[in-house]
Amino acid sequence: MTTVIKNGTIVTADLTYKADVKIDGGKIVETGPNLSGDETLDASGCYVMPGGIDPHTHLEMPFMGTYSSDDFESGTRAALSGGTTMVVDFALPAPGQSLLEALTMWDNKSTRANCDYSFHMAVTWWSEQVFKEMETIVRDKGINTFKHFMAYKGALMVDDDEMFASFQRCAELGALPLVHAENGDVVASMSAKLLAEGNNGPEAHAYSRPAEVEGEATNRAIMIADMAGCPVYIVHTSCEQAHEAIRRARAKGMRVYGEPLIQHLTLDESEYSNPDWDHAARRVMSPPFRSKQHQDSLWAGLASGSLQVVATDHCAFTTAQKRFGVGDFTKIPNGTGGLEDRMPMLWTHGVNTGRLTMNEFVAVTSTNIAKILNIYPKKGAILVGADADIVVWDPNRSKVISSKTQQSAIDYNVFEGKEVTGLPRYTLTRGVVAIEESTIKTREGHGEFVRREPVTAVSKALSTWKEITSPRKVERSGIPATGV
Amino acid sequence: MTTVIKNGTIVTADLTYKADVKIDGGKIVETGPNLSGDETLDASGCYVMPGGIDPHTHLEMPFMGTYSSDDFESGTRAALSGGTTMVVDFALPAPGQSLLEALTMWDNKSTRANCDYSFHMAVTWWSEQVFKEMETIVRDKGINTFKHFMAYKGALMVDDDEMFASFQRCAELGALPLVHAENGDVVASMSAKLLAEGNNGPEAHAYSRPAEVEGEATNRAIMIADMAGCPVYIVHTSCEQAHEAIRRARAKGMRVYGEPLIQHLTLDESEYSNPDWDHAARRVMSPPFRSKQHQDSLWAGLASGSLQVVATDHCAFTTAQKRFGVGDFTKIPNGTGGLEDRMPMLWTHGVNTGRLTMNEFVAVTSTNIAKILNIYPKKGAILVGADADIVVWDPNRSKVISSKTQQSAIDYNVFEGKEVTGLPRYTLTRGVVAIEESTIKTREGHGEFVRREPVTAVSKALSTWKEITSPRKVERSGIPATGV
Amino acid sequence: MTTVIKNGTIVTADLTYKADVKIDGGKIVETGPNLSGDETLDASGCYVMPGGIDPHTHLEMPFMGTYSSDDFESGTRAALSGGTTMVVDFALPAPGQSLLEALTMWDNKSTRANCDYSFHMAVTWWSEQVFKEMETIVRDKGINTFKHFMAYKGALMVDDDEMFASFQRCAELGALPLVHAENGDVVASMSAKLLAEGNNGPEAHAYSRPAEVEGEATNRAIMIADMAGCPVYIVHTSCEQAHEAIRRARAKGMRVYGEPLIQHLTLDESEYSNPDWDHAARRVMSPPFRSKQHQDSLWAGLASGSLQVVATDHCAFTTAQKRFGVGDFTKIPNGTGGLEDRMPMLWTHGVNTGRLTMNEFVAVTSTNIAKILNIYPKKGAILVGADADIVVWDPNRSKVISSKTQQSAIDYNVFEGKEVTGLPRYTLTRGVVAIEESTIKTREGHGEFVRREPVTAVSKALSTWKEITSPRKVERSGIPATGV
Amino acid sequence: MTTVIKNGTIVTADLTYKADVKIDGGKIVETGPNLSGDETLDASGCYVMPGGIDPHTHLEMPFMGTYSSDDFESGTRAALSGGTTMVVDFALPAPGQSLLEALTMWDNKSTRANCDYSFHMAVTWWSEQVFKEMETIVRDKGINTFKHFMAYKGALMVDDDEMFASFQRCAELGALPLVHAENGDVVASMSAKLLAEGNNGPEAHAYSRPAEVEGEATNRAIMIADMAGCPVYIVHTSCEQAHEAIRRARAKGMRVYGEPLIQHLTLDESEYSNPDWDHAARRVMSPPFRSKQHQDSLWAGLASGSLQVVATDHCAFTTAQKRFGVGDFTKIPNGTGGLEDRMPMLWTHGVNTGRLTMNEFVAVTSTNIAKILNIYPKKGAILVGADADIVVWDPNRSKVISSKTQQSAIDYNVFEGKEVTGLPRYTLTRGVVAIEESTIKTREGHGEFVRREPVTAVSKALSTWKEITSPRKVERSGIPATGV
Ligand SMILES: [Zn+2]
Ligand SMILES: [Zn+2]
Ligand SMILES: [Zn+2]
Ligand SMILES: [Zn+2]
Ligand SMILES: [Zn+2]
Ligand SMILES: [Zn+2]
Ligand SMILES: [Zn+2]
Ligand SMILES: [Zn+2]
Repeated sequence: MTTVIKNGTIVTADLTYKADVKIDGGKIVETGPNLSGDETLDASGCYVMPGGIDPHTHLEMPFMGTYSSDDFESGTRAALSGGTTMVVDFALPAPGQSLLEALTMWDNKSTRANCDYSFHMAVTWWSEQVFKEMETIVRDKGINTFKHFMAYKGALMVDDDEMFASFQRCAELGALPLVHAENGDVVASMSAKLLAEGNNGPEAHAYSRPAEVEGEATNRAIMIADMAGCPVYIVHTSCEQAHEAIRRARAKGMRVYGEPLIQHLTLDESEYSNPDWDHAARRVMSPPFRSKQHQDSLWAGLASGSLQVVATDHCAFTTAQKRFGVGDFTKIPNGTGGLEDRMPMLWTHGVNTGRLTMNEFVAVTSTNIAKILNIYPKKGAILVGADADIVVWDPNRSKVISSKTQQSAIDYNVFEGKEVTGLPRYTLTRGVVAIEESTIKTREGHGEFVRREPVTAVSKALSTWKEITSPRKVERSGIPATGV
Repeated sequence: MTTVIKNGTIVTADLTYKADVKIDGGKIVETGPNLSGDETLDASGCYVMPGGIDPHTHLEMPFMGTYSSDDFESGTRAALSGGTTMVVDFALPAPGQSLLEALTMWDNKSTRANCDYSFHMAVTWWSEQVFKEMETIVRDKGINTFKHFMAYKGALMVDDDEMFASFQRCAELGALPLVHAENGDVVASMSAKLLAEGNNGPEAHAYSRPAEVEGEATNRAIMIADMAGCPVYIVHTSCEQAHEAIRRARAKGMRVYGEPLIQHLTLDESEYSNPDWDHAARRVMSPPFRSKQHQDSLWAGLASGSLQVVATDHCAFTTAQKRFGVGDFTKIPNGTGGLEDRMPMLWTHGVNTGRLTMNEFVAVTSTNIAKILNIYPKKGAILVGADADIVVWDPNRSKVISSKTQQSAIDYNVFEGKEVTGLPRYTLTRGVVAIEESTIKTREGHGEFVRREPVTAVSKALSTWKEITSPRKVERSGIPATGV
Repeated sequence: MTTVIKNGTIVTADLTYKADVKIDGGKIVETGPNLSGDETLDASGCYVMPGGIDPHTHLEMPFMGTYSSDDFESGTRAALSGGTTMVVDFALPAPGQSLLEALTMWDNKSTRANCDYSFHMAVTWWSEQVFKEMETIVRDKGINTFKHFMAYKGALMVDDDEMFASFQRCAELGALPLVHAENGDVVASMSAKLLAEGNNGPEAHAYSRPAEVEGEATNRAIMIADMAGCPVYIVHTSCEQAHEAIRRARAKGMRVYGEPLIQHLTLDESEYSNPDWDHAARRVMSPPFRSKQHQDSLWAGLASGSLQVVATDHCAFTTAQKRFGVGDFTKIPNGTGGLEDRMPMLWTHGVNTGRLTMNEFVAVTSTNIAKILNIYPKKGAILVGADADIVVWDPNRSKVISSKTQQSAIDYNVFEGKEVTGLPRYTLTRGVVAIEESTIKTREGHGEFVRREPVTAVSKALSTWKEITSPRKVERSGIPATGV
Repeated sequence: MTTVIKNGTIVTADLTYKADVKIDGGKIVETGPNLSGDETLDASGCYVMPGGIDPHTHLEMPFMGTYSSDDFESGTRAALSGGTTMVVDFALPAPGQSLLEALTMWDNKSTRANCDYSFHMAVTWWSEQVFKEMETIVRDKGINTFKHFMAYKGALMVDDDEMFASFQRCAELGALPLVHAENGDVVASMSAKLLAEGNNGPEAHAYSRPAEVEGEATNRAIMIADMAGCPVYIVHTSCEQAHEAIRRARAKGMRVYGEPLIQHLTLDESEYSNPDWDHAARRVMSPPFRSKQHQDSLWAGLASGSLQVVATDHCAFTTAQKRFGVGDFTKIPNGTGGLEDRMPMLWTHGVNTGRLTMNEFVAVTSTNIAKILNIYPKKGAILVGADADIVVWDPNRSKVISSKTQQSAIDYNVFEGKEVTGLPRYTLTRGVVAIEESTIKTREGHGEFVRREPVTAVSKALSTWKEITSPRKVERSGIPATGV
C-alpha cells in the first residue's frame, strides 16, 4: 500500500520546494509533482519535513525505587504528537554493572515504543570489563555513543581519569562520547552547604549549580576529548559559559557539538522564585534554567552553527514524585517533560520570530543529530530511500499548551499556558500515520531499534589529523649525548 | 543523448554513497545503482562530486590601461581543468558609471566562457541613480550580490556612509552585500609612508596592510550590516583578526559569512622575503599572505563553520605586468592565479590531512556558496534536476603544479612545485565532458549566465527578527510632560 | 601657615595607613604620626585621599549659540563639593580654526576656576597648520593630549585619514590621542531615518547609537593607534562592545585606556522610557545609557584594570536648553551633569558593595589618570612634595542627591533621589579648605592651569618596541633578480 | 650606622625621580636630594629600585631521597647576585603529614638564608586536622597563602573536592590559594602512554602536558575559587590557554592573578628537540617551555596587567640528578634554575625592547607580589619605613650568562650564553650590601622570616560582594503551596 503526501512544500535542512512525497513499505519511494497512491494525505498550506529526532530522553528511568513517569509508550506518543518520530534514550548501568546487562534492561522497556528509537550507553564506572564491553556495544549492538556524567557524585559520576580512559576507547572504536557537564564535586559540596544553611527549597537546586560550574565541566570535557583524539558532544548546554567553551574549542578546529534544550531556550530562572513550591519543583532539572542572557547565547549558537541540536532531556516526574524533595531540594527528582512541545515551541520562538530559518529548524530538530549519530539519511531526510518518518507541519495551527490535553503521563507541563503557532497536521512513523491533528493513532510496539554504525567521516578525519600531528620522538645519538 | 557516470561514490555536502549518475539535457536525471546511458564515464575508485564554484574571480579585469591576463576563455578553462564548473566574476563600474552599463561590458566579455558563470555587481559610488539601478540589477538582471571595496582609495573605495546606504538598499531588495575589508585610508597612508622611506619592494605591499587593518574593516562592515539589517559576506578573509570579528558577530547571532582563499590557506608571508623580486611580486595580492598562525585559524574556521567558502580571487597578471611596479610596490598589479589549483590544493592540504572531511570539502568548494548565492540545488548538488556540473574526482591522481602545464595564460604559478594528490578524472559542465584527465575538451562559449534570485531564507528570517526587535517609540502624554 | 589633617587614615592607590598630613604652601610637606601645625582639620573616622581628578568636563561649552550652563566657577565648585580637586576640559577649535586661538578662548573662561585644571586640545580638522600647532601646544602650552571625535558629523568629526595623520603626529610628539568613539556616519544616517519615521523623542537618541556602533569605532580607533605607534585613550566607554575591543587590544599588548563614566556605571537605558519627556531628555548624552549587562562589564573592567578611569563628561544643560529638542531629538543638547556626584556615587556603588577596594577607588578617580596625563605625583598622590589636593572622606556621611542642594547651575540632577553613603568632610585645593561638609568656601579664581609634559614612560616604551619590530626592507641583488 | 645611596634615579612601580636614599637600621629613613651618611654607595647612572621578590622557589626541596641542589644559602646568594632580595618557598607536607610539622622542617632549612624569605604552605591532603591547622598557620605562623597542586598524581595532587574545601577555608581565613594548574589525571595517563610507546626522552615530558592541559586546570581552579568566594593566584602561567582563562575570569570581575616565569617568557619548546639529552633534560620543568606565540601572550599580559608577577620556580637539579630519568622521562626531576637571571633577563628582553616600562619592571618583579602577599610597603617599595631591600641597577652593565660564573650550585644554566644588559651594581638586603657588582658579600643566616597577615583589601572586598550577591531563600507560604 502506498501513501502520498500531496500539495505540500518539502522543507529539509537545505531545501525548500513544492513536491509530493510517495511512501511505500515505510520508506520514501518518490518525490515530485503530481504523485498518486493508495492513500492521500493533504498537505496544502503545510511544510513536509523530516520527523523530529530527540536524542536525549529518559523514559521509565529508574529513580529512588520508582521510575520516571513517561515510559516508552506514553513518551513516544507524546513525541509523535509533537512531530518527533525518533527518540534516543540512555541505558544506564549501575556502577559495577555490565553494560550488556544494562542494555538488556533498556531493550525490555523499549518494546512498547510507538516510534523508532535508539540508545546511548552510559559509562558510569571503569574497568577492563567496561573497556571490552564497549567494543561489543559498538560492533554488535549498533550503538556508537557513550554518555559520561561529570555530576551526580556517588551515583553516575565518573572522574577525569575514567573519562579520559573511556574517551580514548571511543577514539579507538570510532564512537562519540557524550557528556553531562557539571562539576559534580562542587555541586555536591555546595548542595550540602545550602542545605546546612536552611536553603532547602527548589530554588536552591539552581543555586547549587551556577553557570560557571557547567562552563568549567564543559571546558574540561573538551580538553579531555582533544587529548584522547575524539569528537565530543555536550548534552544540555544551558549557558553562555558552556557555549563559550564550545565556541573556543571549535575556533581551534576541535570537533565539539553542543545541544541546548528547548526548556533552556524558552524558560528562565525566574520560575524558581515562584512562591508555589510545586511550580518551582516541577522545573527542577540539571542544569537549571538560566537568565535571558543565556537564552540569547543559545539562540545565536543555533543560528551560527556553534550549537547543533535542540533536545528535551525529557524525564518526567509527577508532582507527587517531585514532592519527595519537600524540605530537601536534593531529593527532588531532576527532570522535566518536553517531548511533545519541543517542535512547536522551537517553531514559535525560532521560526516565527526570524531567529531561525525553516531549514535551520529542520537541521537542529532532526538532520544535524541524524548526521552526528550516523543514521543520516535513513533518518533526518526527505530523500528516496529514507525512512518515512515525516511531519506534515501546519504553520497556521495554534494551541495553548496545557497538561490537560497533553500525551505525557504527568499532571503538569512546564510550558503550561504558552501559545504555540505551528503544529503537526500529520506525523508519520515509517510511513504510518500516528497523529492526525489532535487525533492519536499511535500503535504500541510499532517502534524499532535503529542501529548506528561507528566511524563517522568526522571521527575518521580527526584520527588522521591527530596521527599527522602526533608527538615525534627526538632521535639522539647516545643518551646522554654528553657521554654517559 | 544520455551520459552515465558509473561505479563511483557520490560525495556531497552531506552524503557519501555508491551510485551511478545519469545525465540528460545537461541535467541530472537519475541517481542509483546500475544505470546505463548512451555514453558511460568510468568513475571506479573515484568520488563524484558537485563541480566547484569559485565565487571570486576577476577575468579580463581592466587595470591601468591593460587587463588581467586570464579572460573568460582561459580562466574558465583553468577552472574546469581543476574541477571548478562555475565562476562568479565582478562587474566593476567606474565611479560615476551606470551599473547597467558596467554590466553590459562584463556581459560582453563573458560570451567566451567555457563554463557557467554569474556576476556580482560592485557599488563603487553612490547616488540616486545607483540606488535605483540596484533594483533593476536584482529584479531584471538576476544578480543578488553587491560588492563593496573598503580599500583602493581614490578608485573603487566607498566610505561608511555610502556603504551604509548601499547595505540598507540591499536589505530592502533582499540582496547580499559583499565586502573587500581593509581600511583604505590607513593602507593608502602607510603605503605612501613606506615608499617615502625607500621601502619600495613587494614586501612593502604586505607591510602596508597588516592583519589588524583587515580585521578592523571586517569588524566595521559587520556592524554596518547589522545596523542595516542585512547579512554580509566578507571576501578573502585572510587572518585571525578578520576571522575573530566574524566569529564574534556570529556568536551574537549575526548573519555573517567569511571566504578564505586557497592561497591564504596554503602560502605564507615568507614568500615576500624571497630575494627574487619577481617571485615576491607575483605573490602580491590584497590581502597579502599571512603567517602560519593565521592559516591555522582559517582551517579551523572551515572545519567549524565560522568560515564557509574557499575561493581564489583569481586575477592573473603576467610577470611583465607585475614589473610595472619595479621601484614602486603600489604599482604592482594586485592578484594571483589559483582557479586551476584551488580544489587539488584544498583536497591535498585539507582532506588528505584530515583537517576536512570529504563532505566539508564539497561544502566549502561548492554547496555552501550555492546556497549563499541562492542557486542551490541548481548548482552545488548531485540531485535529480540539478545541472550536471560534476567533477569525477580521482583521489589517487597526483601531479606537481607547474606553470608549464597549466591552463592559465600567465607565465608562472604561485603554487609552482607543490605536489597535489587528488585531481579530476572528468569535469563535466552541464553534462558535457570538458576535461578528461589532462585532455582539454572545453568549448568556448558553452558557459551560460546563471540568474540568482534575491531574498534567501536567511535574509527573510533576519528581516523578521529586525522588525520584531526594532526600536519602539515611547508614548508620552504631553511633551514635555512637565507642562510645556 | 601650615595645616595638619589629624587622626585620619591615608588611603592611596596602593596604601592604607594611619598618618597625619602636614601642608604648607599648598603642598604636602610631611606625613606621619602626631604632626602639628597652625591649623588642624580633624579626620577622625575618615579616609584622607588624593582629591579626585575628572579628566572629562565641558564647562561653558559653546552650543548652538548658547553655552553649557556650568562654567568654570560653578563647575569647579560642584567638583570640590564632591571631592574632586582638578578637572580637565576640552578646548574645541571650530573646523578651520587655529588650535592656539581656541586655547586662548578656553584660557579666558578658566580664570574663574575654583580648583586646578588643565585642557585637552581637540583636533577637529587637519592641515599643515594643525600639524605644526600641535607641536606648539605640546612644547609651549603644556598640553599632551589631543581629542578626536569620530561622531558629530558635519561638526567636530574627523575621518580615518585625519585621525591617522593626527595619531602619527601624537606618536612623534609623545602625546596621547583621546577618542570619542562612535561611528558618526552611521549615527547621522540612523538619526535621519528615525526622525523620518516619526521617532523624534529622546529615546530615539539612544536608538540612533547602539552599543555596536560604539564598539566598532572603539575598535577602529585602536587599530589606527596601533598603526600610528601611539597609545590611545577611549573616553566614555559605555558598553561591553567597546570594552571588549579594549580588552582584545590589551591582550595583544597594545597600550589602550578606557574611561567609563559614573553615569554609565549606575544608570541604565530604562531612563529613556520614562513617559516624562523632560526626564528622558535630561539624560540624553552620547553614548547613551545602556542595559545593566553593560554596567556589569564596566565594573568588572575597573576591578581588573582593563578600564582605568571614572569620569563624568560633565556638560550640563538646563531643562530649558534640553527643550530645544522637543519634536526633534537631534536638537536636544547632549550632556548631563555629574561632577559633584561622581565620587559619592562610585564609593556607594563600588566600595560599599565590595566591587572595588578603597585603593582601587582612589586609583580610578585620581591616581590612574594622573599617571596617564603625566602629572603624577604632583596630582593623584599623598606624598611629600605633592600638591595638597586632598579629600577627607567620611565613609559614614550620607545624603540623598537632589538638585535643590547641588552646586551645579542646572535645575535637575540625573541622580536625583539616590542615597549616597561616603562624602567629603573636607575638600582641600592646594592646601586651602574649599569644602567643609555642606559649607562652601571655594574661592573663584583660585584654580591654576596644570602643565603636562609629553613622552610618558609608556609612550617611550611603545616607540622602542615599534622601532624594533618595524618592517625591514628585503635586500635584493638586481631588481627584478631574474635580470631585467 | 647610616648608608646613603647617592646620585641615582629612584624607580618604583609608579615613580621615576632623582633622589638619594638614606638607610638606617635596615630600613629606609629618608629619600631626597643631597643626603649624607656614614657610608656612601654611588648610584650614578643607575636606577635605585626595590629589590626583587621571587615568590616561587623550591630550595633544598626533598625529591626521591635527595634534594634540589640549591639550598637556602646558595639559592639566596644567587638571588641577591641577580638583584632579588626576598624569596618565598613552599613548605610541602607529605600527604597525611601535619602542616605545622612540615613548616618546622622548612624553618630549619631556612636558617642559612642570606636574604629575607617567607613560606607558602601547601595543602596536599584534606582532613579535619588540615582544616584546623590552616587557621594556626594563618593566625600564628604568619602565612597567608596555601598552595594546591592539580598535578603530580599520587604525590602532591589534590582533587576538586579537596581543593574546594581548602579554598572555602581560605575564604574564611582571608588567605589566598595558589595553584599549580595542570590536569594531573590526564598528565599521568598520557605519560604512561608515551612511555609505553617508547617515547621516553625529555621531549616526551613536554608532550605529556600540552598547553590545553594547563589551560583546563587553570580554568577549573578559577571556577572553584569563584564558588568558594576567594581570590586565586595561578603559579607558572606558561601559555595562552591558561592566560586566556585568567583574562576571561578577570573580564567578569573575578580576582585572579597569574604568574609567568622568566623561563617561559624567554625560552621555547625547541630546546627539547636538542639532540643532546642533557641539554633537553636540564630544561624539563612543569609546565614545559612553549612556542613563541605563547611567549607573546605572556609578555602582553605583563604589559596589560592580566598577569602580575614574574617568578622563577627555581628548583635546581644537577645534571647527575637529571640523569635519574635516562630512559624514562617521568623520572627526570622537574625544575630549572633562574633566581640569579630573572631580573637581568627580564630587563634585557622587557625593558630594553620597550615591551615593559621600568616601572612595570619593578611592579612585576617586586611590588605587585608584595601587595598580593600583603607585605607592601615593608617590601616592594622605596618609601620611608620600608625595609632597605634595594637593588642599584646599572642599565649599562652587561654579561654573558654562564654556569661557570653563577652562584647556583648546579653545573649548568638554562640561559647559558645569553647576553644580558642591565645588572645590579649593588644589592642590599635590609640595608646591608650583599652584592657589589661581581663581588659576593652575602652573610649566611642574615635572612629573616617575613610574616604576612591575612585579609587583604581585595579579599575583604570580594567577601562583601559575595555576601551581597549570595543566593536568597524564596519565601513560601505553605510547602507545597498547593496544599500538602
Ligand atoms: Zn544530564
Ligand atoms: Zn539527561
Ligand atoms: Zn579584494
Ligand atoms: Zn577580488
Ligand atoms: Zn564625547
Ligand atoms: Zn565629552
Ligand atoms: Zn608547579
Ligand atoms: Zn613550583
